[in-house]
Formats: sequence, C-alpha cells, structure tokens
Amino acid sequence: MNPDTDVLVREMGLRDGLQMISTFVPTEAKLAWIRAELDAGVREIEVTSFVPPKLIPQFVDAEEVTTRAMEMEGLTVMTLVPNLRGAERAFALGVHVVDFVVSVSRTHNLKNVRREREASLEDFKRIVEARDAAGLKGRTRLAAGLSTALGCSYEGRIAVDEVRRCAAFLAEAGAEEIMVADTVGYADPKQVREVFQAVLAETGALPVAAHFHDTRGTGLANVSAALDCGVRRFDASLGGLGGCNFAPGASGNIVMEDLCFMLDSMGLRTGIDLAKLLAARAIPAQHLGAASLSGALARAGLPNHYQTATERAAATH
Amino acid sequence: MNPDTDVLVREMGLRDGLQMISTFVPTEAKLAWIRAELDAGVREIEVTSFVPPKLIPQFVDAEEVTTRAMEMEGLTVMTLVPNLRGAERAFALGVHVVDFVVSVSRTHNLKNVRREREASLEDFKRIVEARDAAGLKGRTRLAAGLSTALGCSYEGRIAVDEVRRCAAFLAEAGAEEIMVADTVGYADPKQVREVFQAVLAETGALPVAAHFHDTRGTGLANVSAALDCGVRRFDASLGGLGGCNFAPGASGNIVMEDLCFMLDSMGLRTGIDLAKLLAARAIPAQHLGAASLSGALARAGLPNHYQTATERAAATH
Repeated sequence: MNPDTDVLVREMGLRDGLQMISTFVPTEAKLAWIRAELDAGVREIEVTSFVPPKLIPQFVDAEEVTTRAMEMEGLTVMTLVPNLRGAERAFALGVHVVDFVVSVSRTHNLKNVRREREASLEDFKRIVEARDAAGLKGRTRLAAGLSTALGCSYEGRIAVDEVRRCAAFLAEAGAEEIMVADTVGYADPKQVREVFQAVLAETGALPVAAHFHDTRGTGLANVSAALDCGVRRFDASLGGLGGCNFAPGASGNIVMEDLCFMLDSMGLRTGIDLAKLLAARAIPAQHLGAASLSGALARAGLPNHYQTATERAAATH
Repeated sequence: MNPDTDVLVREMGLRDGLQMISTFVPTEAKLAWIRAELDAGVREIEVTSFVPPKLIPQFVDAEEVTTRAMEMEGLTVMTLVPNLRGAERAFALGVHVVDFVVSVSRTHNLKNVRREREASLEDFKRIVEARDAAGLKGRTRLAAGLSTALGCSYEGRIAVDEVRRCAAFLAEAGAEEIMVADTVGYADPKQVREVFQAVLAETGALPVAAHFHDTRGTGLANVSAALDCGVRRFDASLGGLGGCNFAPGASGNIVMEDLCFMLDSMGLRTGIDLAKLLAARAIPAQHLGAASLSGALARAGLPNHYQTATERAAATH
C-alpha cells in the first residue's frame, strides 16, 4: 500500500452493525453479504464476535461464519474478541486478524465487559502469549482497539493522555495495530487531530486505524481529520448499520458507501467498486428492512460524469 | 468577530430550503421560524428570494417577509437576487444584505437564469451601481455567490481557475463578500481546500463564505476543510431542508444543528443555543412534515455531560 494513494476500508457491519440488533440474520445471508462485499473489492471484513452466544445470540454462528469466510479467496477475516476466552475460540480457527477491544473509559469497560480497564489491558498480554503458544505468530495478526477513546456516555470527554497511555501499553504488549474508536459518536475533527497525533507519536511504525460512528453527523469530517494525521485504515459499515439505539435511519458506524465515495473523490484508492458496494445493501436490507440502512450516496447516486480515482489517474498518464 | 474563536452560521432554509418545495409555507409560519432562530442566536438569515413569483410561488410573499424580518431587532436580513430586477426590489426595501448568485458552470447558468455567465457577471456591476445610486452604499452589503463552484450536474468537475476568475471579477466589481457554493453536493475536502485556497488568494481581505450541500454525506467534512483554510462564514439550513429532489430525509443544505454542534464541539463559538435551535425544527416540521427534516443531532441528542464551547472557555479561566 502506498500511503499517498491507498486507503484500507474495512467492513464492521457484520459485527458492530449486528451486535445490538435482535433480529437474527441467517448464516447464509451473512455469508452472502461478506461475499458481495469481497466481490466489490472489500479486502478486510470483521465477520463476527467471539462473545458468549448467551449474551449476544446474533453471534451463535460465530464459528461457522468465520470458517466459511476464511475459505473465500482474497479475504482477510477479522473477528472481535472481548477477552482471552474469545481469543482462544478465534485462535482455534486460525483467524487472520483478532481484534481485541478495551475501553479507555474505566466505567464503560466495567459496564461492557464487567472488569477493570487494567484487567482488560493485562488480558491482552495473555492473548499475545496464547497466540504465540498456538504457533500463530506471523499468521494471526493481533489488533488492539481503544473503545470510547473520543468520549463516553458515562464519563463524557476522555483525557487524551489516558488514550495515549492505553495505546502505549498495548503497543508494548505486542499489538500489531492500534484502533482508536469513537464508540458513541462524540468526536469532532479538532479532537480527532489531538487524539490521533498523541497516539501516533506513541506507536511509531505500528499501523493506526480509525473507527468512527456518525451518531451526530461528524463521522466523515473526523475521517478527513484523521487522514490529515496520516491514518490510512478506516472502519465503516454498509448502510451505517449499528444505530439501532435511535430512530430508524439513524446511522451507527460511518456509512461505508459514503466513506468510499469521499475517499475516491479525494483521489485515494480503496480498491472498492462503488456500484457493487451499493448493490450489496440489498442483502442486509432484505433481513433488517431497508429503513435500517442509511447513506447519502445510496439516495443521491454518484455525481454525473463521475470518474473514479483510478480512471482519473489513468486519464492523466 | 475573533477568527480564532468565532464563526458566523447563516440560515438558508427559508430560501434555499423552500425554493423547490411546492407546499406554500404561510407567511406567519416563515416569520415564526425566523423569530425562533433569531431567539436561538442566529444573527443572519436569508429570508426569501426576489425571483419572479410566477416562477416560484413560494416567494410570492417576498416583500412582506423581508419587511417584517427587518423589524426584528438584532437580525441581519439577507435576500437572494438572481438579477438586477430582483436587486431593485431588495433595494426598495433597504435589505441589509443582497446576495447575488451566478453559476460558474456556463451550462448551469444558462439553465438557471437563461443567460450567459458573462452576462450575469456584468449584471453584478449594474447591481453595484444601482445600490450606490439608491444611496445604500455602506448600508446594504452586496454578497456575490458562485454557484456550482465545486461541481455541476451538467458539466461535472469545474476547473479551479474558472472559480478563481469569477471570484476575482466579482471582487473587482465591488462584492463585499464572496460565497463559494457546492450547489449539487459533489465536493470533497481535498477539492474544497484547492478551490478555497485559490479564491482566498484572489480576494484578499474580503470575507469568503462557504455554502455546502450534504447530498453525498461530505458536507461537514467540507466545512472542516474550509475551516482549515480560514473560512469563518457558513451557510446551512435547519433540518438540512433543500433536498426535495431525493427521498424524504435526504438532506440538501448541510444541517444547521449538526454544523453548530460540530463547530461548538471544536471550541468555535457560533452564539447559537443548540437546544433552542433543535426546538425551532417544530415550525417547518409542522408545515412540511417531520420527514422533510434530517439531522443526526436531532435524533441522537447532545452527548452526555456536554459542555458548550462557552462553558468550557469559562471553566478554564
């Protein structure tokens, strides 16, 4: 990847989008959704979460979805794990990327995974050891996510220094990527610059990813600010799925299609075919209802005479 | 205004929001809407358009709305004019700001006002003369808007140099503000930087305003890019009114409430009370239907523990 021209956009909808939706999406539909996005050029997809199925029945098929997604050629399969036990399930399948998440907000971490933040951070060390003991070093990448890094429903603003210190801990412990998340959609571009600059100063050559929610409309503005800081990995979800706490149509994660349009329009290459990506909306729409999906590009369509970044690059050579 | 801390946000909904809506909003409702926003702290509102009422019956009450809005203390009343004839109607009332608009896209200008772009540009000179002849110099401010400056449905991308040259012409002719508009919502943050830097290099000390549409979700990202360039005047509309070409809920202008939230969150002061602004949505909603209004903040509410920019500034002193 060339940081001047290439951006990695990752689909979170099957995990972050579905985790709060009680309607069970059939396993075959999940796989069709993954396949449709892979066919559109999405190369990295978080396909499920290894949480106890009793807590989130939506992920009762975590093993099957993961195994079958891993059979799809060209796809990097990512799964979320909330703790060592979840990680062990992922390691048993040899998942390509294990995404461990801890909340920077102590209160949020307690509410979310019922343990102290420091206990979760220490857990990551054990996850690294377990990965290495399973002989997966160099095969299973360990990503570490900082949830509520840009604000928390319980604690409000989070001190930048807390984010920086958690990032440093995880990098030191062996994380191969740091993901900084605005879990509740509180962030603004100025804050994004402050937080990402602090994290990037701490993490050196380690890739840093941004995970924004569009709860208050600032999602793509925050992406633009993170791009300015040099971030080139972004999480999103098809149709902005993930906003079921609010009214239908309220977006959760930033909308994948709108993100890809903005990046492409800026001349950054995602490798994703916008028309195919838009067509993929039909799959979750069929199971969750079209009103569950938001997205400006889906309503308005591409600009007339639109040339993709690749077409424009070709035209100037 | 201090450019480090203050931003002027202007309501366009009564003009840009209503111009394509066939449902006539009663004059009293328009005035109640203006009053509610003024009460929320909005200091500059485009209240109507002096187009021929035969073309747009929504503005049959242009004179009455303007006259009565001008009686409201503390409000700067702006009206759009497409040509000299419209400007003369505005001058007859001594309107505070007359907003003349020309399309940078030649095709769009022909379709929109049925004349060559150069004829429209020349018209602006006559508008300046007419204003001065009416003894309104120093009383009626002349703003000049560049429509389709960031893309056109007919022509696609617009050359930056065309925008720059139009801006230079209008500045030379006596414009007291240049407004750069993404009329059809094609812009991305990279393009915004290029276009605004080119215009700002041309206009010197003249204020430059940004008028973005959120048709493809990039509105606030474009605001953030324009802020980086030093722009401190932004047009928006309550509930993003103006998107009636598309499905209900598709936004036209950037959403006023979301814009004010983002700016405030970044520590920039708009002088606008977010709760009062949100409450003002009830007025257009009553006449146009709640589904006509979009907006993320209206759905999600303010973050918990949210402190306004003013409160945060006070807390640190």
